[in-house]
Amino acid sequence: MGGHKLEGLKDRVDGSEPWFRENLRTLVEHPTISPGKTDDAPIVAGAEAAREIMAAAGASAEIVECSGTPSVLGRFAHPDPVARIVVYNHLDVQPADPERWQQADPFKMEVEAHPDRDWIYKGRGTTDDKGPGLCALRAASWAHEAGLPIDISVLWETEEEIGSPNFAEVVQARREQLACDAVIVSDTIWPSDAQPAISTGLRGSLQAMIRLRTAGKHAHSGLVGGAARNPVRELAAIATAIDGARFWHEGVVPPSKDELDGFMRSGFDIEYFKSAHDLHRLETDVPLEVMLRIWARPTFEVHGIAGGHMGAGLKTIVPDHAELKISFRLVPTQDARALGEALTRFVHALDPDVEVEVSGYLEPYQGPTAGSVHDAIVAGMTEATGRTPVNVREGGSIGAVPVLADVLGVPVHFLPLSLPEHGYHAPNERFDWAQARVGMVSFARVFDHLAAG
Amino acid sequence: MGGHKLEGLKDRVDGSEPWFRENLRTLVEHPTISPGKTDDAPIVAGAEAAREIMAAAGASAEIVECSGTPSVLGRFAHPDPVARIVVYNHLDVQPADPERWQQADPFKMEVEAHPDRDWIYKGRGTTDDKGPGLCALRAASWAHEAGLPIDISVLWETEEEIGSPNFAEVVQARREQLACDAVIVSDTIWPSDAQPAISTGLRGSLQAMIRLRTAGKHAHSGLVGGAARNPVRELAAIATAIDGARFWHEGVVPPSKDELDGFMRSGFDIEYFKSAHDLHRLETDVPLEVMLRIWARPTFEVHGIAGGHMGAGLKTIVPDHAELKISFRLVPTQDARALGEALTRFVHALDPDVEVEVSGYLEPYQGPTAGSVHDAIVAGMTEATGRTPVNVREGGSIGAVPVLADVLGVPVHFLPLSLPEHGYHAPNERFDWAQARVGMVSFARVFDHLAAG
Repeated sequence: MGGHKLEGLKDRVDGSEPWFRENLRTLVEHPTISPGKTDDAPIVAGAEAAREIMAAAGASAEIVECSGTPSVLGRFAHPDPVARIVVYNHLDVQPADPERWQQADPFKMEVEAHPDRDWIYKGRGTTDDKGPGLCALRAASWAHEAGLPIDISVLWETEEEIGSPNFAEVVQARREQLACDAVIVSDTIWPSDAQPAISTGLRGSLQAMIRLRTAGKHAHSGLVGGAARNPVRELAAIATAIDGARFWHEGVVPPSKDELDGFMRSGFDIEYFKSAHDLHRLETDVPLEVMLRIWARPTFEVHGIAGGHMGAGLKTIVPDHAELKISFRLVPTQDARALGEALTRFVHALDPDVEVEVSGYLEPYQGPTAGSVHDAIVAGMTEATGRTPVNVREGGSIGAVPVLADVLGVPVHFLPLSLPEHGYHAPNERFDWAQARVGMVSFARVFDHLAAG
Repeated sequence: MGGHKLEGLKDRVDGSEPWFRENLRTLVEHPTISPGKTDDAPIVAGAEAAREIMAAAGASAEIVECSGTPSVLGRFAHPDPVARIVVYNHLDVQPADPERWQQADPFKMEVEAHPDRDWIYKGRGTTDDKGPGLCALRAASWAHEAGLPIDISVLWETEEEIGSPNFAEVVQARREQLACDAVIVSDTIWPSDAQPAISTGLRGSLQAMIRLRTAGKHAHSGLVGGAARNPVRELAAIATAIDGARFWHEGVVPPSKDELDGFMRSGFDIEYFKSAHDLHRLETDVPLEVMLRIWARPTFEVHGIAGGHMGAGLKTIVPDHAELKISFRLVPTQDARALGEALTRFVHALDPDVEVEVSGYLEPYQGPTAGSVHDAIVAGMTEATGRTPVNVREGGSIGAVPVLADVLGVPVHFLPLSLPEHGYHAPNERFDWAQARVGMVSFARVFDHLAAG
């Protein structure tokens, strides 16, 4: 591998903090919120800023349009590559309610010195997923400048947080330029800051709205209570019935002994997990049971029940309608579309008056745990951290992953850089320079290894 | 009875529409909302307007202060009464969201001509309970002017819609002036506009908030789903468990054969009931079963479940807390305080982490179905409508009723004037001149009969 190895990597990384900070600030300060958006302009502007950052880093960069908001593609081509890699990240972010944040504006990045992490970068999108995207871009630009015989494409989507509904169009449209040996995705986490980890599977998800209207207006419970149907009470019963049902456990295959071994060595710690997510109590306090529940088993969540009186206090109304907002997470070997059909059948068997709208599917994904790209990631992360990463799974869902695997016909690997306390989708989201360094070193070494053939 | 009978009652009533309309407008245009109020001023102003209306009608009228907002007491005294009657009404009203009303401002009364009902008076409080209060006041003033040997007090509360928390103070403070043979309350309905009815029992109620906090902030279901507790899902299960439990059915005594006979003759009509309350479907379409459910059986309602994502769309969060807003209606022979304790025990047996706050009790009430006051009400309503009223029950709760019965030690009777389509607590509340006429004639004849000894 020696002939192609990037020289002076430590100095390159050490000198990159100002570059990283300023470009992260530029990206964070574009409020590229995709869930519930009514205006594409902030995302379009954020995508253009990203294209300029890619171009300044030496990529041939372009906006790729689709039926939704566009993606940004940066290419670092080599005339005679021995390897071709696509690195996927996303530019869109979750909404951020300033009232729940310590900083005044989640879209004004704040930087704080930290004894262990060097610098903390605070703001929506710092860790999910703008910071990790910049780490890969920086390493790709070094590989390109050094003339390593590797083709690297960086592809940044803008609809990941809404399930990547149009991303297949993007990948189809640039299928030729994106032809590659493997895709690498950084949009996942280590269970512990003390133990680097590689995700080898993603949960899928299925979202649904279950609605019931029983009246044209709210009624007075003294006048109609007992005879009138109560849609909030009825949908609560449907949620309870789903929670106890078997249909969403169909098709689950328990993890292998090797996988369980990786889980046990992941450094997962109950107290750290609770503290990172601000959880007061868990369903169980047995660590392996928690890991199985978040990575290797499906889950059913009720996100909210709208309808009736949702404000302060109590009004003795019989509500006129209700909407149950639910989702499932599915594990590899389960099928999201089949689950959607089973849900609809289950609910209609309980009550045919209820409307079931399945509003989003993301298929689960099982990635490779061996091969040259996996080995390069293990080697890169080992060099960057001094510790050998373990294989774990990811409890979240990334709609783009099955799309990339299917359309490009290649495996998708993970090179996670985020930590639980960075706060995916949560208030006070942050990223830090210690993890950014790991990202730059790891990606640089992955490119080194793959360019060495 | 002849010697004391009011002369020219038909002419008196026919000439009273302008008086009724203008005074109802004055009362409606004071927005005397008690639930959730942050400012007493509108109620205090409404009470003063009511006092002036009583005084103009010939009563000695005063504001009666208490720990909450005040009541208004008007006395029509006779030096040598053969009967003493207190008529109770309330001045406070439910909130009114203008977006759900046809009229621009629910607190600007609108009047519309109607072929059957003569005039329709539209606005919050017209039927619940300002219009009926004015009917009794008008009849009392005639009895007084005519020198009938009867003491009549009209007592208008301003905290009925919040469960009359301070009304016992008012009644205690004026216990001497309020000493009487019976109380009459108009704050209930006829099941059908075709059949006058007398309520002989009220359901009680118990309100509670059930709360669970499991985290300090919302978490991402991909990261924690399966291990984190989901408080909306858990409170939905608690609601479902309560719905199926027996504890809130304890102490129910089925109605007597005579009561069932009254129910059957009440003119209750399923289609009319559904249309009046804008209900699309009921729990049952058997009329007697509906009447039993709304009048003679307890009910459990879920008014809303706050927590999680309650707006449009779906967010894949695991909520950090939830609040289940529930109430029960209880029937006579059940005990609201005992039910509150049973609820707390039941919920804590399911989950000791859950907080149960019982926020309001109203005891049920069983009124008399015989005696001179009952007979006078039957006779008055028969003369006013040409039809003999039947005995039914009321599904709602009036906190003031058990207070009046207990403190004054007398029976509380009902002389209902409202119709289902008048919309108690609903948008587009209304009252009508046809029912106001029935009220004036009925009360005048009740006073006649009682003054005759």
